[in-house]
Amino acid sequence: MPPPIRVSILGASGYAGAELLRLLLVHPRVSVDRLFASSSTGRPVADLFPAFARRLEKTFESFAPEAIRESDLVFLALPSGEAMSLVPSILEQGKRVIDFGGDFRLKDVSRYEEFYKHQHTAAAVVAQSVYGLPEWNAAMIRQAALVANPGCYPTSITLPLIPLVKEQIIEPAGIVVNSLSGVSGAGRSASVDMSFGEVNESVRAYKVGVHQHLPEIEQAIRQFSGTAATVTFTPHLLPITRGIYTTIVATLRRSVGEQDVRAAYRAAYASAAFVRLTNAIPEIKHTTMTNYIDIGFRLYQRNSQVLVFSVIDNLVKGAAGQAVQNMNLMFGFDETEGLR
Amino acid sequence: MPPPIRVSILGASGYAGAELLRLLLVHPRVSVDRLFASSSTGRPVADLFPAFARRLEKTFESFAPEAIRESDLVFLALPSGEAMSLVPSILEQGKRVIDFGGDFRLKDVSRYEEFYKHQHTAAAVVAQSVYGLPEWNAAMIRQAALVANPGCYPTSITLPLIPLVKEQIIEPAGIVVNSLSGVSGAGRSASVDMSFGEVNESVRAYKVGVHQHLPEIEQAIRQFSGTAATVTFTPHLLPITRGIYTTIVATLRRSVGEQDVRAAYRAAYASAAFVRLTNAIPEIKHTTMTNYIDIGFRLYQRNSQVLVFSVIDNLVKGAAGQAVQNMNLMFGFDETEGLR
Amino acid sequence: MPPPIRVSILGASGYAGAELLRLLLVHPRVSVDRLFASSSTGRPVADLFPAFARRLEKTFESFAPEAIRESDLVFLALPSGEAMSLVPSILEQGKRVIDFGGDFRLKDVSRYEEFYKHQHTAAAVVAQSVYGLPEWNAAMIRQAALVANPGCYPTSITLPLIPLVKEQIIEPAGIVVNSLSGVSGAGRSASVDMSFGEVNESVRAYKVGVHQHLPEIEQAIRQFSGTAATVTFTPHLLPITRGIYTTIVATLRRSVGEQDVRAAYRAAYASAAFVRLTNAIPEIKHTTMTNYIDIGFRLYQRNSQVLVFSVIDNLVKGAAGQAVQNMNLMFGFDETEGLR
Amino acid sequence: MPPPIRVSILGASGYAGAELLRLLLVHPRVSVDRLFASSSTGRPVADLFPAFARRLEKTFESFAPEAIRESDLVFLALPSGEAMSLVPSILEQGKRVIDFGGDFRLKDVSRYEEFYKHQHTAAAVVAQSVYGLPEWNAAMIRQAALVANPGCYPTSITLPLIPLVKEQIIEPAGIVVNSLSGVSGAGRSASVDMSFGEVNESVRAYKVGVHQHLPEIEQAIRQFSGTAATVTFTPHLLPITRGIYTTIVATLRRSVGEQDVRAAYRAAYASAAFVRLTNAIPEIKHTTMTNYIDIGFRLYQRNSQVLVFSVIDNLVKGAAGQAVQNMNLMFGFDETEGLR
Repeated sequence: MPPPIRVSILGASGYAGAELLRLLLVHPRVSVDRLFASSSTGRPVADLFPAFARRLEKTFESFAPEAIRESDLVFLALPSGEAMSLVPSILEQGKRVIDFGGDFRLKDVSRYEEFYKHQHTAAAVVAQSVYGLPEWNAAMIRQAALVANPGCYPTSITLPLIPLVKEQIIEPAGIVVNSLSGVSGAGRSASVDMSFGEVNESVRAYKVGVHQHLPEIEQAIRQFSGTAATVTFTPHLLPITRGIYTTIVATLRRSVGEQDVRAAYRAAYASAAFVRLTNAIPEIKHTTMTNYIDIGFRLYQRNSQVLVFSVIDNLVKGAAGQAVQNMNLMFGFDETEGLR
Repeated sequence: MPPPIRVSILGASGYAGAELLRLLLVHPRVSVDRLFASSSTGRPVADLFPAFARRLEKTFESFAPEAIRESDLVFLALPSGEAMSLVPSILEQGKRVIDFGGDFRLKDVSRYEEFYKHQHTAAAVVAQSVYGLPEWNAAMIRQAALVANPGCYPTSITLPLIPLVKEQIIEPAGIVVNSLSGVSGAGRSASVDMSFGEVNESVRAYKVGVHQHLPEIEQAIRQFSGTAATVTFTPHLLPITRGIYTTIVATLRRSVGEQDVRAAYRAAYASAAFVRLTNAIPEIKHTTMTNYIDIGFRLYQRNSQVLVFSVIDNLVKGAAGQAVQNMNLMFGFDETEGLR
Repeated sequence: MPPPIRVSILGASGYAGAELLRLLLVHPRVSVDRLFASSSTGRPVADLFPAFARRLEKTFESFAPEAIRESDLVFLALPSGEAMSLVPSILEQGKRVIDFGGDFRLKDVSRYEEFYKHQHTAAAVVAQSVYGLPEWNAAMIRQAALVANPGCYPTSITLPLIPLVKEQIIEPAGIVVNSLSGVSGAGRSASVDMSFGEVNESVRAYKVGVHQHLPEIEQAIRQFSGTAATVTFTPHLLPITRGIYTTIVATLRRSVGEQDVRAAYRAAYASAAFVRLTNAIPEIKHTTMTNYIDIGFRLYQRNSQVLVFSVIDNLVKGAAGQAVQNMNLMFGFDETEGLR
Repeated sequence: MPPPIRVSILGASGYAGAELLRLLLVHPRVSVDRLFASSSTGRPVADLFPAFARRLEKTFESFAPEAIRESDLVFLALPSGEAMSLVPSILEQGKRVIDFGGDFRLKDVSRYEEFYKHQHTAAAVVAQSVYGLPEWNAAMIRQAALVANPGCYPTSITLPLIPLVKEQIIEPAGIVVNSLSGVSGAGRSASVDMSFGEVNESVRAYKVGVHQHLPEIEQAIRQFSGTAATVTFTPHLLPITRGIYTTIVATLRRSVGEQDVRAAYRAAYASAAFVRLTNAIPEIKHTTMTNYIDIGFRLYQRNSQVLVFSVIDNLVKGAAGQAVQNMNLMFGFDETEGLR
């Protein structure tokens, strides 16, 4: 076996960063190099995350370009807007990059600025970024210098939708998507709104009509199905830690039976290691702590619709696990390495 | 003040029955008469529900017709199918009845049999039942001998939809409804599926396309708006105890502004004591342990849609509280008596 | 009925303040006067707490002495250290005061300074404060100008312990107390530690050996039993919103039977409206949203010990409910008014 | 690498059995042979546990002695009382056995019968069983034909206590232990008591003074410290899925400092792969889904006591993980194989 690749993480002290670290520590082809976290500089990792005690001796550092000299790959798990100021120079250092945030996902910079509500300062780099949805973009990912790791909601929404739009099973307009997310999707931060007392025993929809994942969802469907779709996407916050539940209602384009839907999914995902088509209605707990997406559906002939349900662990398939899957492709490892 | 009315409860040992008891014990115009619960016959109420210790000395009894001789009103909180065999004779005794179950809600008995999957044996009584949605049916409820108390999901769905269909703000076809319910909606019973270990940290959709509340929702919209609507209704089970969150996506029928939607709701509910129109997106916790329904909405002009959100406590406005509201109307009390 | 008393609240925007408001709004002898909350000045109460929409039109104000001119009673629900600078002048205005915090509970100011870790600047007022444990101090409370409302943990611990120490059933030394609290005991504030993602699916002990409620517990036992006791008190944080579970292990002083323990409790609490002695082991949910404390016990003859269990709702009997109970005594109302 | 050993599981459809399966599927030295579950005979494993879909094709079988002919090791995860009728003949077949239940843990059969409340029918086999606490009994475990895997509570209690009793740091009498457990400790079964609606937002102590783990705790302390101890053990049920929190209060036997306690733990566990001594107070979430036990302590000199806190994942270090650790010892694998 060749020597392991060396990887560093910027933003290693958030939930996605810590999950990535958890996965990398058991990955047989990877050696963790440097961990950067501006708010925790100088603190031992195991001090902030006691779960890593006796497993990792490293300390969070403040980022400096020379610190990644030995790294083959740099992960960025930063608040949106921060990656765009760092990635250009990291790429110039000849490092490959996987960015967890939204800065390099949208090819149309004006859409970025509309939904993320700040200016994009690295538009030139956007063109060379590759959208990291391995089930649809593996060839490009293998060659990529910069992979834009998909958002958690888009992962849970586009994987079930692309095959149905591509095979013309559903109308691409008027797709209604409701997603329910655990709190870890919002990251690790201090706010009354995310405190246990406010979140527990409650539910709320949020960012109705303005969530920044909407343009990403529509772009990915168009890119991989060849057809533009319009989606009404409503995210909700749930009192659980991990997981996204997505419920999709779409209008059937033609008279189809269950076998047609099943065939579309099989054509798309028969060899996809992390996509499971379920007979039963999916449940969040079946994918918790795994890199799987479970997809189930029911035809609703009365209203000429199909109802599709998907579940993922937002920190794994929705973030760190998918990033590892992308890394595996980029470095020629088995796609499932470190993810079983 | 006149002497209190005497009320009895059949099925007093379930969650809805216990919630009703909690409300009746503080109602100034009511005296609790007899409590029936076949599975707990002979047990003191405070033994099964220690929350009632020192507040109620009664014992659960096995039902017998003569036991309700002194009662003015009988509540039934029984599994569907059981009320239909008891209600006819209770009515013949001259007692007024509020039934929590589905047996007398659907005027079309064939729809009942299709969705509840057993025969209806008291079809003759269905005709005289009054649907207990106080905001739309108060006049009929006041006179009713038999009130069919609405289901929890239908309450959370029809109250926000009726004004929009009635005022022709939305298309009556293609309405997509996703509802999220706490576990108490499923009642108090022993099953692996409802055990803490299975429900916690997870979510699942269930009874997709076949939930028995669908015909009730469509009947109530038609009855009170004058227009037939078709709804795609998907219920989900959440790891919380109380509360329903309903998210509705409907197509605008004409060019409307926020003021038009607001006007429709105001026309319908300006004097409704328990309907609150909110500016913010509603959250379950704001109605927990209350008889309110909170309704909020957002226009989504990009897709010519309106998104409507409602929250209730499924055990209060979705069951026992609404039953008390109906009782208040039936006996000429203030509609809010005992519910503040 | 005489006109209602007028009450104001300082610190009305925290969990305890909001709970107090909830109780006062249904109290038949009270009119809410002014609500002060420095961090939310100018915001409508129903904006911060939508649960109060349609029930309360008031706006949070910044406190000023003249604003309480019309008030008969002022509640303070402030972080410890803030009440001591306000209470002296409020008392000078001739107003009666109930303070939720720790500033006036400890008669020994040096103990206050040791455990609360700041100087006490109103030591002169401490002497006239009355400890608001209604089951043991009702006569004093009735006359009090200033009532120090007990802490949540001390309420759950002293009520079960005082009778056993007083009747010499247990050794006053070596009492081991473990308490488990829901998060609302920590108040409403922004911190990573109290975020849903950190608290959910976990438990932690905290402030081991240094919790500020310890001297209060020992003072109350000594004051009402006549015997000094030493307690080892360990609080734990649980992933629930409301409730405290206290488990006490104490050594039997003499050979006693269940009837002796029961007799001690009966002697103490036979006429206490809010103390329930249970045969079953208590559970938090049986007191949620009520002003009851449930106390159960088991003799453990093998080790010559008694194990005592108590549960309260920390926001009701542990804070706002007990404050209302104190108010009822102070103004000559029935002790249970507004608390059923 | 030699060919993997073949292992079978009896009682594979419970929580502990499924957790064991999860661990064995990623263990590099193990091949899963047969899975027995009487209540689910004939059902594909992935049907009952969709989390195993695409990872395991096996079907639950009804146990028959010849079915384990090819197995090197048999795990039993059965309700107490069932293993004793099966283990003798499995041993006679020459198979090695790890039993998750209590049937072979207590050397004193009369204690078994007192606490488990049924007769022991395989007393002869008890003598040859080895208690599977790897940190204290590794040499015996390596040679054992039958390992009695410790209970979840005893694991969380004896590991922190043995060093302190052994080094005479604490009095062996009067040790007070409070443990808080998630629901998965109670197994996967249908009961109202364990339903989400009853467990959520509550806490209850249970089996006070009569829990069957008490004699096991005292036996293990005596066996490995050489001193008999008496413990007052009170288990509590928490609304979380996984994890045990144990809080111990013990009297110091002599004047000790933090360094003495720390030294006792270091002497015992310096080379123990899965025991972590923490400076901070432990929290359940830091060991979730791992085989670690975290132990922290605080001296409480005021009362001459030490307070010790431990956390484990009850399904891993408290059951399946510890069983794998035992298997690793029995078959000469690295003790941590498959557990990182």
